[in-house]
Amino acid sequence: MATTRLIVIGGDAAGMSAASNVRRKVPLREIVVFERSPHTSYSACGMPYFIAGLVETSEQLVARTPETFREKFNIDARVRQEVVELDLAGQRVRVKSLESGSESWEPYDQLLIATGAEAILPQLQGSDADGIFGLSTLASGIRVHRFLKQQLPRRAVVVGGGYIGLEMAETLVRLGLQVSLVDRGEQVMGTLDPDMGVLVSEALREIGVTLYLRESLTGYETANGRVTGVVTDQRTLPAELVIVGLGTRPNSELAAAAGITLGEKDSIRVNSRMQTSSDGVWAAGDCAESFHLVSRKPFHVALGTVANKQGRVAGINLSGGYATFPGVVGTAVSKICKYEVARTGLTERKIRDLGLLYDTAVIKSKTRAGYYPGAGWISVKLLSEQGSGRLLGGQIVGLEGAAKRIDVLATALTAGMTVQQLVDLDLSYAPPFSPVWDPVQTAARQLV
Amino acid sequence: MATTRLIVIGGDAAGMSAASNVRRKVPLREIVVFERSPHTSYSACGMPYFIAGLVETSEQLVARTPETFREKFNIDARVRQEVVELDLAGQRVRVKSLESGSESWEPYDQLLIATGAEAILPQLQGSDADGIFGLSTLASGIRVHRFLKQQLPRRAVVVGGGYIGLEMAETLVRLGLQVSLVDRGEQVMGTLDPDMGVLVSEALREIGVTLYLRESLTGYETANGRVTGVVTDQRTLPAELVIVGLGTRPNSELAAAAGITLGEKDSIRVNSRMQTSSDGVWAAGDCAESFHLVSRKPFHVALGTVANKQGRVAGINLSGGYATFPGVVGTAVSKICKYEVARTGLTERKIRDLGLLYDTAVIKSKTRAGYYPGAGWISVKLLSEQGSGRLLGGQIVGLEGAAKRIDVLATALTAGMTVQQLVDLDLSYAPPFSPVWDPVQTAARQLV
Repeated sequence: MATTRLIVIGGDAAGMSAASNVRRKVPLREIVVFERSPHTSYSACGMPYFIAGLVETSEQLVARTPETFREKFNIDARVRQEVVELDLAGQRVRVKSLESGSESWEPYDQLLIATGAEAILPQLQGSDADGIFGLSTLASGIRVHRFLKQQLPRRAVVVGGGYIGLEMAETLVRLGLQVSLVDRGEQVMGTLDPDMGVLVSEALREIGVTLYLRESLTGYETANGRVTGVVTDQRTLPAELVIVGLGTRPNSELAAAAGITLGEKDSIRVNSRMQTSSDGVWAAGDCAESFHLVSRKPFHVALGTVANKQGRVAGINLSGGYATFPGVVGTAVSKICKYEVARTGLTERKIRDLGLLYDTAVIKSKTRAGYYPGAGWISVKLLSEQGSGRLLGGQIVGLEGAAKRIDVLATALTAGMTVQQLVDLDLSYAPPFSPVWDPVQTAARQLV
Repeated sequence: MATTRLIVIGGDAAGMSAASNVRRKVPLREIVVFERSPHTSYSACGMPYFIAGLVETSEQLVARTPETFREKFNIDARVRQEVVELDLAGQRVRVKSLESGSESWEPYDQLLIATGAEAILPQLQGSDADGIFGLSTLASGIRVHRFLKQQLPRRAVVVGGGYIGLEMAETLVRLGLQVSLVDRGEQVMGTLDPDMGVLVSEALREIGVTLYLRESLTGYETANGRVTGVVTDQRTLPAELVIVGLGTRPNSELAAAAGITLGEKDSIRVNSRMQTSSDGVWAAGDCAESFHLVSRKPFHVALGTVANKQGRVAGINLSGGYATFPGVVGTAVSKICKYEVARTGLTERKIRDLGLLYDTAVIKSKTRAGYYPGAGWISVKLLSEQGSGRLLGGQIVGLEGAAKRIDVLATALTAGMTVQQLVDLDLSYAPPFSPVWDPVQTAARQLV
């Protein structure tokens, strides 16, 4: 295997994690990475903090540059090179240089597709105007940063109240803009049940964001090629800057065009070793499918944690080793100013869709012993299956120290624990960290 | 059962948790609690923060007063009443009023022993002098608080570098005293392996505590009935205040005198329903035995979390319900100024004592994404069984946000997870909360 050529398409988390794992195991193998952006291995999740000025330079978000990969790891990372076609029968890919426009065919023995996901930007009236941004690549983050510095917008509209939408709303408030947020849901954060989402909506209002809920984006008003307003099904909101946070879609067109099987939300279907339907072709990261350990169904999620794990598994397998990626439980966390939000497992809607019956508990507690300075509120919601008592999901909203508790629930979900087993857990306690019953256990006690 | 009489000995966490559970299930039953101190249901763990002035009054540490129990819960909580003898055959206890000195026999149908634990204070030369304190009851915390206010000591010695010792060392530094700490171990915090304990020793030195390690207390110097110094096997340390933090011992003498079987460290042996060897007699809390789910052996631990859980289980069973306490994994956490320390499972020494072979990994990482403001260091040690890869223990030392991660390890230990399963966990990630690989997973990756 040392002399075979591995081509990796995509130089971010999954691709470079795989490439690095292969390099570690097979020191002499040829590894070529094609990345269409100028950057490798960056933290997309860090962009709101760079834009907010909490992180000074975009370079700080880059874990390893193409030069580092070439010089220190002997990984031939080629940026501004876009793979535009897969020839699976011929075991080669057609690569276009985004600098020169020239194209060439590059042969491979093994191929890893790690093309990521891109922000969903609906094509609507005015959507090509300046000032409208999605956020998925570091380059897009740098564009927003530059736009803010150069154009000094005063009013911003964020479309979509998911993680990126919320973090960008905070960022823009920090920068002194008037910020409105449009979401078609009953509350922001549609990955939470509405009774928990309302706490996040309230937090957003408290930091000064004007919310327009149950409203949908229908288009943009523009003048001289620039956006001047966001049009919803109910009103027009003036804005010089629009952030579209309507989620991402997997970059799977290349794979689909080559006949590789797609799965959930058009992500590339893989087995647990990250093999696609085509022999010798692997996929990992935001473009690849995952598996939900609670619903026991195929699932797609675009998150750095999953991309890193899948990339690692692909890299071990591509080196002749054996590793599997068992799946996810749907864990996510976010911070909006002082408020922390986290979720794992299934929401009420998902549980109903599966035809399961369930019980719920929502409790309010404290992040520390009530008498300890800085104790803040925390609300925990748990969902458990009727009869078995098996934990099905958890949601947390609260102040400092609230959110990372979700990891206990993620671990319990993975282990298939019941709420009774949650009550019995020997979790840590000292007054600066928790009440004597950790809030997740206080919630579990209501369900036993 | 509504008309039978329940007597509870001890009015803190376990006793009152049991009594409250019984009251909830059986509204009319007679419940009498005898407590020798003036207080019920207080947070012993909060005493260092009360003494430090972070918590203003000792009343804030009391969750429910005897009056509240009597008036709101119809629980006859009698304080300053000490049970001095159990007559199991006669189903009665002899109670002494600590106010009047009078004694009486009180009959019961069911008896719960929840007598707690008390600080170990070795009887040595000078140990009866003023200024030497153990800390286990709220009354003892109030005495230390008063001594500090009235006597204005300048130099303090803390004997023992466990949780209470460390928290009191911090407290006394905060109050402006010169603080020395004597511990006979290689490092403080003997519940950690020395390679992690050294990080805590360094943290203590950094906050200004002078450490004397590998030294043992041999006695005290006194003058006019007051302590003036601590004598070790190597030196004499001048001090007007001495805090002895050498651990606690279960208050099991009453039970032992009545012929009830004792177990680990002379705690009262119980089954998982909290029944003692004597029919109709139950025990819970710091005086009762527990079970270690990792070593699979009887275990004793005096912690509020365990006391509350055992009290709850006893209360359910005493109400005619059915509940079991499966055991603990040995989780504990503490904060010393800005440093956080946590542990769960088995140390290297304990694993060797069990005759198991193991692997270890120690890693240093960050509490947040490296580029995010406030990212601090965190060190994680994991221990796993050779062959099976089963997690056996974990230890964490670090800055803000480090310690509560121990709960993931406690949950994984309870579920019997392997380090590979830890690597695969879908833990939460966002830059304000974690690097993309949570530090516990970075450690686990070294072991697969």
